[in-house]
Amino acid sequence: MISKPELHTSLSPALLHLYDLNNSVVVIIDVFRATSTIASVLYNGAKCVIPVDSVPKAIEISKNIGGIAAGERDGLIAEGLQHGNSPLEYTREFIENKVLVLTTTNGTRLLHMALEKGAESIISGSFPNLSAVCDHLVAEKRNVILGCAGWKDRFNLEDTLFAGAVISRIKEHFTIHCDSSLMAEAMFVKHKSNLLKFAPQLTHYHRLVERFGLIEDIKYCLTDDVANVLPVYKEGKLIIKSR
Amino acid sequence: MISKPELHTSLSPALLHLYDLNNSVVVIIDVFRATSTIASVLYNGAKCVIPVDSVPKAIEISKNIGGIAAGERDGLIAEGLQHGNSPLEYTREFIENKVLVLTTTNGTRLLHMALEKGAESIISGSFPNLSAVCDHLVAEKRNVILGCAGWKDRFNLEDTLFAGAVISRIKEHFTIHCDSSLMAEAMFVKHKSNLLKFAPQLTHYHRLVERFGLIEDIKYCLTDDVANVLPVYKEGKLIIKSR
Repeated sequence: MISKPELHTSLSPALLHLYDLNNSVVVIIDVFRATSTIASVLYNGAKCVIPVDSVPKAIEISKNIGGIAAGERDGLIAEGLQHGNSPLEYTREFIENKVLVLTTTNGTRLLHMALEKGAESIISGSFPNLSAVCDHLVAEKRNVILGCAGWKDRFNLEDTLFAGAVISRIKEHFTIHCDSSLMAEAMFVKHKSNLLKFAPQLTHYHRLVERFGLIEDIKYCLTDDVANVLPVYKEGKLIIKSR
Repeated sequence: MISKPELHTSLSPALLHLYDLNNSVVVIIDVFRATSTIASVLYNGAKCVIPVDSVPKAIEISKNIGGIAAGERDGLIAEGLQHGNSPLEYTREFIENKVLVLTTTNGTRLLHMALEKGAESIISGSFPNLSAVCDHLVAEKRNVILGCAGWKDRFNLEDTLFAGAVISRIKEHFTIHCDSSLMAEAMFVKHKSNLLKFAPQLTHYHRLVERFGLIEDIKYCLTDDVANVLPVYKEGKLIIKSR
């Protein structure tokens, strides 16, 4: 019998070093909102998203290549930028054929950490592109690390729920000996029939909705397959994997 | 209105630095098995438990003071020691009026990390002393960090379930804005009616039961209040807090 590849869930960037990244497909998960925005931007026809780790770098690169600099710090559009981290901001009319240079508090930071720690195969996952992520992971037949971005290294439930959604769909294709994955799937199964109703209990919901009024963002970020493309990281850029 | 103290759950030693330890009561949680053993040892009349971070130190200190050196590495009695980390090993006949010098893979390591990071009020928690822990936390009226020891920095569910048990009992006394705590309580509520039936799904269960046959240890470690004392850390020792 051929053994199945392994799947693990890393609940925080501060736990990522515990996993064997360079022999795995690493899924970057930042549900509210970086990876939902990345899916949205590429789905709406952007050439690519360039994830960077600082605002000055986003400004510099976007100037050099004629792209759009965007970013978020602590939930708001980052100082010095005109565009933020809302998936709804990037309509087809606005973003088609353009390049977005994006920096965020958690998601793009996690992606750079994964690179530093030797990850060679990185994709971006969120509810808006859930099916594309699942199809890819099953087809690859390689080990998987579901990497939750959390909030400043703290555990959060929305990223965990997405990990659980992936696990609940594809678990029969993998060997899973991982309490984080077991928990993630259980939490997803408990709340899958109404994620939006559960959302107000999440710490990050308070940050985004009560402070910044971003309820439409939350709805989008919790909807399956509304931007069902697969962003893969290649030579500094996130691009759509052609099927 | 007087605001309630805050409660947070740290899911791994690698996340402990994210919390404000020195203004909180820190509960060290290593359900399988260090903190269950500590409760058992003190309940059965030991003078104290001295937690240390290495086997040579356990041997040296126990020689100097005429105590019993004990320890575990990777689930087994540590090399060079005669006594391990099983709560059932420490009957009253054996341990009464003695001093146990204990080193373990996760639990005693977490305790030393908490000390290094400035914790001033440390107690030890497990299902065998659940009520004593809850009573203490409610009486103290201070912020609480529930510190899960995990397994070599990885998340584990048994420590999380204990955190959830504490939260489900005492939550009305605290302000809780913490996704880890929300998750811990949900997982506990889901499985509280039969923790022992759920246990075979845990990674650590396989390590302890399938490899080492320690099913009786598991049963003890999942039983409420069978060693219902409160171990508090004071000047290098865990002793029973007198009521």
